[in-house]
Amino acid sequence: MIRKFISQLNGGTTIDDIFLVQNKDLRTTKNGSLYIQAQLSDRTGTIDARMWDASTPFFESLGDDTFLRIKGRTEIYQNKIQLIIKQILKTSQEDIQLEDYLPSTEQDVNKMFSELKQIVSSIKQPHLKDLLALFFSDKDFCKRFCSAPAAVQYHHAFLGGLLEHTLSVAKLGDIIAPLYPGLNRDLLICGIILHDIGKISELCYERNFHYSDEGQLIGHLISGVLMVEERAKQIDGFPKTLLDLLRHLILSHHGEYEWGSPKLPMTLEALALHYLDNIDAKIHAFNKAILNDKDPNDNWTNYNRMLERKLFKKSHNYI
Amino acid sequence: MIRKFISQLNGGTTIDDIFLVQNKDLRTTKNGSLYIQAQLSDRTGTIDARMWDASTPFFESLGDDTFLRIKGRTEIYQNKIQLIIKQILKTSQEDIQLEDYLPSTEQDVNKMFSELKQIVSSIKQPHLKDLLALFFSDKDFCKRFCSAPAAVQYHHAFLGGLLEHTLSVAKLGDIIAPLYPGLNRDLLICGIILHDIGKISELCYERNFHYSDEGQLIGHLISGVLMVEERAKQIDGFPKTLLDLLRHLILSHHGEYEWGSPKLPMTLEALALHYLDNIDAKIHAFNKAILNDKDPNDNWTNYNRMLERKLFKKSHNYI
Amino acid sequence: MIRKFISQLNGGTTIDDIFLVQNKDLRTTKNGSLYIQAQLSDRTGTIDARMWDASTPFFESLGDDTFLRIKGRTEIYQNKIQLIIKQILKTSQEDIQLEDYLPSTEQDVNKMFSELKQIVSSIKQPHLKDLLALFFSDKDFCKRFCSAPAAVQYHHAFLGGLLEHTLSVAKLGDIIAPLYPGLNRDLLICGIILHDIGKISELCYERNFHYSDEGQLIGHLISGVLMVEERAKQIDGFPKTLLDLLRHLILSHHGEYEWGSPKLPMTLEALALHYLDNIDAKIHAFNKAILNDKDPNDNWTNYNRMLERKLFKKSHNYI
Amino acid sequence: MIRKFISQLNGGTTIDDIFLVQNKDLRTTKNGSLYIQAQLSDRTGTIDARMWDASTPFFESLGDDTFLRIKGRTEIYQNKIQLIIKQILKTSQEDIQLEDYLPSTEQDVNKMFSELKQIVSSIKQPHLKDLLALFFSDKDFCKRFCSAPAAVQYHHAFLGGLLEHTLSVAKLGDIIAPLYPGLNRDLLICGIILHDIGKISELCYERNFHYSDEGQLIGHLISGVLMVEERAKQIDGFPKTLLDLLRHLILSHHGEYEWGSPKLPMTLEALALHYLDNIDAKIHAFNKAILNDKDPNDNWTNYNRMLERKLFKKSHNYI
Amino acid sequence: MIRKFISQLNGGTTIDDIFLVQNKDLRTTKNGSLYIQAQLSDRTGTIDARMWDASTPFFESLGDDTFLRIKGRTEIYQNKIQLIIKQILKTSQEDIQLEDYLPSTEQDVNKMFSELKQIVSSIKQPHLKDLLALFFSDKDFCKRFCSAPAAVQYHHAFLGGLLEHTLSVAKLGDIIAPLYPGLNRDLLICGIILHDIGKISELCYERNFHYSDEGQLIGHLISGVLMVEERAKQIDGFPKTLLDLLRHLILSHHGEYEWGSPKLPMTLEALALHYLDNIDAKIHAFNKAILNDKDPNDNWTNYNRMLERKLFKKSHNYI
Amino acid sequence: MIRKFISQLNGGTTIDDIFLVQNKDLRTTKNGSLYIQAQLSDRTGTIDARMWDASTPFFESLGDDTFLRIKGRTEIYQNKIQLIIKQILKTSQEDIQLEDYLPSTEQDVNKMFSELKQIVSSIKQPHLKDLLALFFSDKDFCKRFCSAPAAVQYHHAFLGGLLEHTLSVAKLGDIIAPLYPGLNRDLLICGIILHDIGKISELCYERNFHYSDEGQLIGHLISGVLMVEERAKQIDGFPKTLLDLLRHLILSHHGEYEWGSPKLPMTLEALALHYLDNIDAKIHAFNKAILNDKDPNDNWTNYNRMLERKLFKKSHNYI
Repeated sequence: MIRKFISQLNGGTTIDDIFLVQNKDLRTTKNGSLYIQAQLSDRTGTIDARMWDASTPFFESLGDDTFLRIKGRTEIYQNKIQLIIKQILKTSQEDIQLEDYLPSTEQDVNKMFSELKQIVSSIKQPHLKDLLALFFSDKDFCKRFCSAPAAVQYHHAFLGGLLEHTLSVAKLGDIIAPLYPGLNRDLLICGIILHDIGKISELCYERNFHYSDEGQLIGHLISGVLMVEERAKQIDGFPKTLLDLLRHLILSHHGEYEWGSPKLPMTLEALALHYLDNIDAKIHAFNKAILNDKDPNDNWTNYNRMLERKLFKKSHNYI
Repeated sequence: MIRKFISQLNGGTTIDDIFLVQNKDLRTTKNGSLYIQAQLSDRTGTIDARMWDASTPFFESLGDDTFLRIKGRTEIYQNKIQLIIKQILKTSQEDIQLEDYLPSTEQDVNKMFSELKQIVSSIKQPHLKDLLALFFSDKDFCKRFCSAPAAVQYHHAFLGGLLEHTLSVAKLGDIIAPLYPGLNRDLLICGIILHDIGKISELCYERNFHYSDEGQLIGHLISGVLMVEERAKQIDGFPKTLLDLLRHLILSHHGEYEWGSPKLPMTLEALALHYLDNIDAKIHAFNKAILNDKDPNDNWTNYNRMLERKLFKKSHNYI
Repeated sequence: MIRKFISQLNGGTTIDDIFLVQNKDLRTTKNGSLYIQAQLSDRTGTIDARMWDASTPFFESLGDDTFLRIKGRTEIYQNKIQLIIKQILKTSQEDIQLEDYLPSTEQDVNKMFSELKQIVSSIKQPHLKDLLALFFSDKDFCKRFCSAPAAVQYHHAFLGGLLEHTLSVAKLGDIIAPLYPGLNRDLLICGIILHDIGKISELCYERNFHYSDEGQLIGHLISGVLMVEERAKQIDGFPKTLLDLLRHLILSHHGEYEWGSPKLPMTLEALALHYLDNIDAKIHAFNKAILNDKDPNDNWTNYNRMLERKLFKKSHNYI
Repeated sequence: MIRKFISQLNGGTTIDDIFLVQNKDLRTTKNGSLYIQAQLSDRTGTIDARMWDASTPFFESLGDDTFLRIKGRTEIYQNKIQLIIKQILKTSQEDIQLEDYLPSTEQDVNKMFSELKQIVSSIKQPHLKDLLALFFSDKDFCKRFCSAPAAVQYHHAFLGGLLEHTLSVAKLGDIIAPLYPGLNRDLLICGIILHDIGKISELCYERNFHYSDEGQLIGHLISGVLMVEERAKQIDGFPKTLLDLLRHLILSHHGEYEWGSPKLPMTLEALALHYLDNIDAKIHAFNKAILNDKDPNDNWTNYNRMLERKLFKKSHNYI
Repeated sequence: MIRKFISQLNGGTTIDDIFLVQNKDLRTTKNGSLYIQAQLSDRTGTIDARMWDASTPFFESLGDDTFLRIKGRTEIYQNKIQLIIKQILKTSQEDIQLEDYLPSTEQDVNKMFSELKQIVSSIKQPHLKDLLALFFSDKDFCKRFCSAPAAVQYHHAFLGGLLEHTLSVAKLGDIIAPLYPGLNRDLLICGIILHDIGKISELCYERNFHYSDEGQLIGHLISGVLMVEERAKQIDGFPKTLLDLLRHLILSHHGEYEWGSPKLPMTLEALALHYLDNIDAKIHAFNKAILNDKDPNDNWTNYNRMLERKLFKKSHNYI
Repeated sequence: MIRKFISQLNGGTTIDDIFLVQNKDLRTTKNGSLYIQAQLSDRTGTIDARMWDASTPFFESLGDDTFLRIKGRTEIYQNKIQLIIKQILKTSQEDIQLEDYLPSTEQDVNKMFSELKQIVSSIKQPHLKDLLALFFSDKDFCKRFCSAPAAVQYHHAFLGGLLEHTLSVAKLGDIIAPLYPGLNRDLLICGIILHDIGKISELCYERNFHYSDEGQLIGHLISGVLMVEERAKQIDGFPKTLLDLLRHLILSHHGEYEWGSPKLPMTLEALALHYLDNIDAKIHAFNKAILNDKDPNDNWTNYNRMLERKLFKKSHNYI
């Protein structure tokens, strides 16, 4: 049965689908009976839902489940659509398509991953080659690297965003390296591929996108350095200064202290990584701000707090 | 006769060459006779020079000439080489090779200019195409565009630097544009080619590199907009908003208010121009800081005030 | 018939007046019939309005008209006044008094303009005199100069505000110039009169006050320089450095990079212009913040975000 | 006998004048004999001086005297003029003209003080009038108010500078007050007259201009408030809030936290004081920077660190 | 009768208690009769209240009284509790327990004050000892010092907060002074005890916590200096520089210009005071932010704007 | 034989001591013979030295040795003392007392280390206890921990400075922890002891104090986290979040992004560590600035660029 997505629901529709439960409460009506008030979501939006005549034992039986199968019917109340629940069923992990609930990349993940591995395979420096081999032969790492978002909301904030962003910066690195002879291509490409891997530990994305405790307390720069550390120790004779140069690439890629880098870029490769990362992130953030803006009559987006400006969203009409 | 460059002079050498006169004074010795004290330079350095037994009429006859032909002989005084002048002769403009006196690009100017014009010729949008045609059919503009430096000291601070930098950013734009579908290639390339043309008016480079009055008072961003204005008026029906978008590219390319841009980039093309300009300028500034650093025993340059950091100058030893 | 202004309306009043239409929608009631929901305004406020039993063709016939003649009757709904529309008629430009719809200066525009032209006529430097003559003999320029606001919301944000502010600063310049001998009065006064003319292109004020595309993309500093450029070219022998000094006055009058000036004031006249502009603007902003504050029981205004402070609004009670 | 000022000395001149002693040491020559090495100054400059064949008792007899009468003869040594001292005599306070040693206002102090007192006498608010009367009937205060500089080096850094600056700002206040009806003239003028009185305690100017311990530890804003406090207590019924408003004027006149004001201007009068003080100070600082610049061939001053820019010093040539 | 606190009220409860009146209005119902709409509070919360069938004379008879005795009954309206007033009676100051209405310290005020006086008594330097004696023998000062809050909302924002904070910092000073021999204990402790006394004049706390006019216009740093001034004048021979050092401690204790200190700490004691004040204030602010955070399911507080970060609120679970 | 320290040398003294060689060159005299020019230092200062009649093989035989035994004689040349070398001998590591060449703590290192270990032994939390045990049972770590400086020049810039600073902060933590119940003492003390251990890798101190490549590229915060990582992995069941909390303490202890912390303190312990570290460092920096200031006649130090202020250095005279 094809899923009915929230953004397409009207009043009077029968529902039988699995939803992501954002929160739920057991409440008391004015006349003293119990009901469940919940907020359900899929990747297209959020809907308020109520189940009348609930009981405490039933409510508690639902536990903290992230996903529940809901049967019921929509209705209009105070000009808004709500869902009156008839039945709530527990569901199992294998029935869930994560992409139905969280925003996902529009690219083909497998194709992107192949492209990235091809770039990886072009690295010749033996220690960097070995290091990347350790990462990309680790199935669990690969799975998380391919599914993680690149941010909670800033840019590439969708499943597969980390891979999409990393590949995009790697391509930039690939075409730019030959233009600047001083740049060491292998170090730059290796730094690009590893610069954001710490986001695998920094971000949680099972229910919505938020920071993990590790992410808040130490951040993806340091997590990335620790992930490299673990593998570099397994490689005989990984040169200390080369390792420091690679750590430096990861730590300095935000480019400024106020953006959380404990070091400014002090090598050509670190400088290039910072700018290439930034240009890809900002172009995506611009595109997203323009796409998300609703008002068709205005040539300008609303003031975007993250970018600290308005954007002209109709260039294409004038060129 | 092959020129003897200052950096290669020893004591006891006979000199007969044209020098750039940085400054000269008529002074009195302790016993009351007059002598000329001057500082002469070519692109390799500076040398102190004295001419004994000078007279006021002779000194005044030299006027403010930037270049003079000097005959004399070097000697060592207090461990430094100085030049004892025997004769000073006026010279004519055609005997002067500007590249002998001021630092110049190491690239082939003609070849770079051909490459740039090829990129120009790839633009299809008719008004932008016409606008660039007006610039590049103007011989005086082309001459100055090919000889101007891109800065007084920060990056590409040498004759031909404006061309070298512009071409380099144009190549970046050329290879990056296809990666980001939202970017309008024609507008981006046109903006890149014109973004620094105001430096032709901002900088003086006949004797050394310094800012012109116009450069100090209004700056190359505004000068560039005025240069565009003059030509755009000659093109029938140049669309107003397209012109605003192009002006915006030039005005916002420094990216931040504190770097003198009166507007932040608010279009994708302006954003891209800012980053591509920045990455090329910073990579050159890094390379220059590393090249200029003298101490062979230190892995690090001195603290670089413009970049606000030290640079690791021996990456290549460790990769 | 005397207009009934929105701020004075009660329930049960018959209406027949032209209103400025802020926005209007065609909507469907729960039972499926169509109605028009609109927001109407005049300079005293805004009122919600509904027209029941509307049709799509009728709604579309209204087009994008900014002003419409509305017949109907007010009523109270949920403690707020709303307007039930009986009839909507199109209207013609000549029936509209712009001052009825947008905030206007409380000064006499003609009198202010005469005063300003008298100050203009006191300038003796021939090129500056010719330049101003070109501006003030241009009827279209004069009309817009007299009606434009000086800002969207910060200070002098009302019709005639540009003239009022410019005249006020010109008077300050007039009385201060004699106190500081180094100041060139003609250049200062000319700079004052032209410093904000770019606001004519930067701001739109036909329906409400907002930035034009040109205003957002290049800003009133650069627009002003371009307006000067166009006229200076018509004057034979306008000295280049004098023109640069005048451009510098316009470009630097915000005084700091972070306020959008691409150059800091580097002449006495530019410095004076910056401070005189600032003192007039800030005094008006203070007065406006105090006037707009509602609570009569507090000696202090609310925190004012633009001024980043609270203001003591009852000094006069204590002196 | 007319004083011979240092800037006009040549070699071979006999000297008998009182000098300000900047510092002096007793030193030993290579052959073991003692000599005095001193630096002497008057308002035109500084000269190195030596007295051969000195003795410890003689040196100690000179104590810490700021002024000494010096007899001797100038000579040229290593292209610099120095003074060979024959005799050093102690001198008495009454023989000293402070203006010979420290830079002084070029205005007539008595005339300025009369003008200021006339402005004082125009104040009508009784408590402010009484307060100013207490200050200006205090002879010691008046003497120091008329002789103090307004700064160590920034602007009006000369004897009489406090008076000159205060009078200048008071005149600005006098002509501007009528233009802005909301401004209370009496409070503004009183605030202007008292805004910098704390500089009497903040600065020392008996030998050169430097900060006193009180100046460093608490500063002229707070010292000024304490001076007002002492007098306000002597006036019956000085209204508390009026006193707070006056304190606020003094405390907030630097206008920004980073310039040492513990409060931002929050009344119209405080705002006006801040800008009028600033415009007078900055215009003087500009003029001083231009006057002090030596190079006649450059249209621009050197980079001025206090003003954070270069200044165009030849406007008058181009208007 | 035991007070019924607002946070514990349900519908249908009879009320007869004194409340703090946050605001009250006389309004007209749709049918034209008058009613009083008020907001009442105690330290546990706020409740909306209405009295039907009010009259203008009765409303005016209530004046501006901060506290009123209210009789009535609670009811539920639109899911919120409101209070229907039957009777309003004026009350007298002695029936009011301020701690019932405003948040108060959880410590024993008398005990804290004894501890503080013991620390005061340990000071040996005679002038500082005399100065503190003048403060602590002043009953009115002591009463206000013991009841004032230390802030409007940042830290120690409750009755008794000034005493609690001062004692806490004094204890820190007491244990730290012996560790750093350069620190003068007497000056440090005296500075600690007096550093925030100006808050007695800066803050109002009779109805809620807000800034007084004096607080806004001059601030507690300057008020504190003035309070010290008044007493120091009563002590014969209080050394001027010692007084300046003490003033400096008070003025510089915020440590940075942007936090309103007109001077940076320039003595060891001023530096220590700044850090000890800061550490106590910040630890309390952290604790308060964690306590006030409602969501039990999140390891993190919401973003705290004052502290500019989120806080990890469950450390204790993981150690 | 007792060492003759450089600061006590006069002319004509016979020398036979080991010196630290700051740099040395082989140069040619004007008449073509070779000599060695060197700069020698011990902890009291630096002296220029020359050895005439040197040869290339001899010069090369000296290699890069940091310490050399020098025989020769001092003489006065141009008013400065220099050392004429007669003989240069190689020396062995065991003859060198590092404290003779580099500034050292004035405390007893063994006593300090005992005190620190006693504080370590008071920690009860088993994983933190185990972790510290791993560090302090590692002889090489202990040796470097006891000899490293805490900075290149800012504070505790001497051998043993890391230990002295760490102990000092640990004592502060020890006495402050009981005052704030929310603080977990064990975590705080453990964080204090480990917060600066990365300085062992960050700083080099064999010849003078400077940053290592690792120090420049990744910094002591990250080095410290990596040192903890290595040991934590050896402890079974070290709880992940506890490890994150400890890492967070180390990473955030600079307290602000601009001081190189990639995270702001977000736990009470991290906040406390930041302030205690800061207060100890700043008090030492103040004391050092005052000690180093030479001029006995001024109550104030020179402007201190690191602290951005002058310091009052004679408080003790006035209390």
